[in-house]
Amino acid sequence: MKPINVGLLGIGTVGGGTFTVLKRNAEEISRRAGRPITITVVADKNLELARQVTGGGVRLTEDAFSVAADPEIDIVVELIGGYGVAKELVLKAIENGKHVVTANKALLAVHGNEIFAAAQKKGVMVAFEAAVAGGIPIIKALREGLSANRIDWIAGIINGTTNFILSEMRDKGLSFAEVLKEAQALGYAEADPTFDIEGIDAAHKATIMSAIAFGIPMQFDRAYVEGITRLDASDIVYAEQLGYRIKLLGIARRRERGVELRVHPTLIPARRLIANVEGAMNAVLVQGDAVGATLYYGKGAGAEPTASAVIADLVDVTRLHTSDPEHRVPHLAFQPDQVRDVPVLPIEDVITSYYLRMRVDDKPGVLADITRILADSDISIEALLQKEAAEGESQTDIIMLTHQTVERNANAAIARIEALPVVSGKVTKLRMESL
Amino acid sequence: MKPINVGLLGIGTVGGGTFTVLKRNAEEISRRAGRPITITVVADKNLELARQVTGGGVRLTEDAFSVAADPEIDIVVELIGGYGVAKELVLKAIENGKHVVTANKALLAVHGNEIFAAAQKKGVMVAFEAAVAGGIPIIKALREGLSANRIDWIAGIINGTTNFILSEMRDKGLSFAEVLKEAQALGYAEADPTFDIEGIDAAHKATIMSAIAFGIPMQFDRAYVEGITRLDASDIVYAEQLGYRIKLLGIARRRERGVELRVHPTLIPARRLIANVEGAMNAVLVQGDAVGATLYYGKGAGAEPTASAVIADLVDVTRLHTSDPEHRVPHLAFQPDQVRDVPVLPIEDVITSYYLRMRVDDKPGVLADITRILADSDISIEALLQKEAAEGESQTDIIMLTHQTVERNANAAIARIEALPVVSGKVTKLRMESL
Repeated sequence: MKPINVGLLGIGTVGGGTFTVLKRNAEEISRRAGRPITITVVADKNLELARQVTGGGVRLTEDAFSVAADPEIDIVVELIGGYGVAKELVLKAIENGKHVVTANKALLAVHGNEIFAAAQKKGVMVAFEAAVAGGIPIIKALREGLSANRIDWIAGIINGTTNFILSEMRDKGLSFAEVLKEAQALGYAEADPTFDIEGIDAAHKATIMSAIAFGIPMQFDRAYVEGITRLDASDIVYAEQLGYRIKLLGIARRRERGVELRVHPTLIPARRLIANVEGAMNAVLVQGDAVGATLYYGKGAGAEPTASAVIADLVDVTRLHTSDPEHRVPHLAFQPDQVRDVPVLPIEDVITSYYLRMRVDDKPGVLADITRILADSDISIEALLQKEAAEGESQTDIIMLTHQTVERNANAAIARIEALPVVSGKVTKLRMESL
Repeated sequence: MKPINVGLLGIGTVGGGTFTVLKRNAEEISRRAGRPITITVVADKNLELARQVTGGGVRLTEDAFSVAADPEIDIVVELIGGYGVAKELVLKAIENGKHVVTANKALLAVHGNEIFAAAQKKGVMVAFEAAVAGGIPIIKALREGLSANRIDWIAGIINGTTNFILSEMRDKGLSFAEVLKEAQALGYAEADPTFDIEGIDAAHKATIMSAIAFGIPMQFDRAYVEGITRLDASDIVYAEQLGYRIKLLGIARRRERGVELRVHPTLIPARRLIANVEGAMNAVLVQGDAVGATLYYGKGAGAEPTASAVIADLVDVTRLHTSDPEHRVPHLAFQPDQVRDVPVLPIEDVITSYYLRMRVDDKPGVLADITRILADSDISIEALLQKEAAEGESQTDIIMLTHQTVERNANAAIARIEALPVVSGKVTKLRMESL
């Protein structure tokens, strides 16, 4: 059967992996897809690198736009990244009637609504399995495997860099800054790690998952995003003593009046499977009303794991490209006219439990004052840890785990606690999920 | 859009769950599928039960064959189970040009080749996500999500009953017989638990996974099947002391000269995520050459989790039913003419590591005799545990973990060890996987 011709834009880490895997497993892949899937042209600014990776035998060009316009190309694979030229190229390819496969979570989280609308209009597919959790087929699971369910919530460890850092902080008792340096030396963190450590990358992925889980548009600009840069090593230790681990989770939860969409360090029970996902690994936990909880675990980044997802999309598109557009899997899982404008709730309306750490004077009545404030705010305490004051010190730490309350209420109570003369400085607040 | 009409055969646990979930989530499901999916007729021998579950409003019949022949029905859902009438019904439905969704692993593992050939010929789909690991979308992951990979091996906890029993034996230090009784009382094991505890159910599922992972026919009759009925509680304790857990795994592994397909109690490192899958939960670990290891976890049985998979198949078939058969996902992941006759290897040709427990005289030289035999057979020892003889006893237990060797070689060495006068009775042999 006639091969499917692929134009590859960007031959960096993932592009190189895609080229390599597609070549190595060519026979097995075409036995599955029913025809060869061939990279016909590679576009990259660095032609020398492109020559090196492809080893010749493939057409190379510096002009990615020529690929998006090439009548011989069936599918354009966009692996350039970012919102700029990548967006133009994807829209151009769609305009020219080409299917698109992309690993670009930033682009989809921010401009996905526009891109999918354009694809819908043109009757082409935009596939993006590689955009979330690398090689784990989580988009497919959410969009197809769990289609019977009303999905209640998703909680994912979807950024390997931060999970590596948190694992190392816990294992070795080191500070965030120390581990970040180590992660950069090992190549687990980039020279400018902002997107990872500030939670932005995880928020992109959580945004995409929220859209396909709940049938809502991408609303990245309304996501609450808090990274791990201000996380204190002592909180990891205290959490451990209370039977919890701290993970950077991307959470999307359906509520009556909207959707929670948030990324932040989160305490989760240490006995949960997802709490034991260590190092740079990713895992996504999904709660559906029929299936209950299912978990998906694997490598969330790297050349070949991400290539695995890119190529799975190529096989899918190859299989589906002759079908009528109305009978394909919809981009956002729900039929385009069935996407509902459900709002993302502001963080003050989120309902969750809290870990509170405060520095207090070590004298009688302090605990009574604090617990009175919480009781007045209808916040129940689930666990309490009071450390003995160190020799010669007049202050000590109190750690509390609360039951669920709305964040606005928690914040108000915290403000009142901070105003107590026996409490020094700010109360450290971390969110907690029982999952 | 015109609804898809479904005929449901069997309104037992899974049939009831399918009816309930399809009704409860009707709106959400049709927003995804693009049209309503409607159960138009239910066939069951027990009309009273059918009336009770469906609450009226649905056509009921005792005659399942009339459903398989009904021109109004687009998809037949077979939830009767077993190889007998279920096979006839599935073949009849296919003959009549209907798509089929089934949860029947026994039927597919034993008669799958015939059924898929018939479906291929008629251009209809037979979907079977619910046949393996209940609500976990593992068929979809293997068949579509990992299609870029050369899959090296699969190892799954794919029988909830036995995992519940093994978890309880370890937690409570009880014997197999004691826990089985408890499991039956709790409804985790059936009155006749043979299929579960002898590993047959897991072998059905492993057979199905091996076919779609490697592009080979179903070869259930060549699977090696060993259940947990002879597992001694002491081995669970010894394994624990050595850092291992014992799980009933279904394993399919690609080797140079064929495929390993086996179900047996298996020692796995306790720190592995899959070793911590407890109770009636299922999990499947898949090793692909590009993606590395990915894990899929969730409920492997029960009314609604299984219904989740049945309905996901209904949505898939609904989406794909207008596509030309050549561009659908092939039943066995590989195009029908690309399935290769790779043989399943006999158990003697399997390569793995071993846990060996033997009862020996507590006197000098015994260990030297035993380790000499292993050395002569080129079997390296990875760990050794020798228990002190109990007060007043002249015999003690030696436990050894070996490195990998071919099973034939291990068996020969074991026979020589058993022939030593200082060794009493049989050597207990369990297989071990590092995963």
